[in-house]
Amino acid sequence: MSDRTDAAVQPTSLPEPPYYAAIFTSLRTDDDPDGYARTAEHLSRLVREVPGFLGEDSARTPGGLSVSVAYFRDLAGIERWRDHPAHRAAKRSGRERWYERYAIHIARVEHGHAFSRHSPTGGRPE
Amino acid sequence: MSDRTDAAVQPTSLPEPPYYAAIFTSLRTDDDPDGYARTAEHLSRLVREVPGFLGEDSARTPGGLSVSVAYFRDLAGIERWRDHPAHRAAKRSGRERWYERYAIHIARVEHGHAFSRHSPTGGRPE
Repeated sequence: MSDRTDAAVQPTSLPEPPYYAAIFTSLRTDDDPDGYARTAEHLSRLVREVPGFLGEDSARTPGGLSVSVAYFRDLAGIERWRDHPAHRAAKRSGRERWYERYAIHIARVEHGHAFSRHSPTGGRPE
Repeated sequence: MSDRTDAAVQPTSLPEPPYYAAIFTSLRTDDDPDGYARTAEHLSRLVREVPGFLGEDSARTPGGLSVSVAYFRDLAGIERWRDHPAHRAAKRSGRERWYERYAIHIARVEHGHAFSRHSPTGGRPE
């Protein structure tokens, strides 16, 4: 629901593991692009208010696949977002109109590392 | 290393959990696009030969973030790919030239579900 193409262009920085990731991959229909965009924008604000939300990385290949990852401190945060009424309503609209197909993977992150050209020792390079 | 924009346009189908996901988010430099593209293409073939590799989802917002997720049967598969000599060499080139920044999250997938418009009961909708 959050594969906006105007997402931040920098990868989210890393919390201490363990944390959780909700991986959402999707392929859109051509139906109702305005309704989809409005809802995606609304949800991207709502998720920031969910206790335990840590951040989000999102990309969309034009005309192709979207891959979005939302990070949460714990499984309870993921469940709060899954059960959020606005999110549930959006998922129904997604199945009815917006998505050709999608997949969700709920995962516990056990390791993470990061690299930044401008602070090569500031991240946690492999 | 595998955020090709010509990646398959359909989300990967779902294996039975648990399985593992390597989430790779990156922002490219403008440096050496041809070398990057050649290496990405080469690696995308190599990873398919790694025992335990299950599939990959990848998207790139033009001029922005790439988000790629490679799925493996187990942590051993992830480690085989991490330690693959060609992959290690590519990561060095990535830090030297290709990436402004990146992050990797290694995660154990505990739940998954999928929806497809053409087989609404064939996936595992929420």
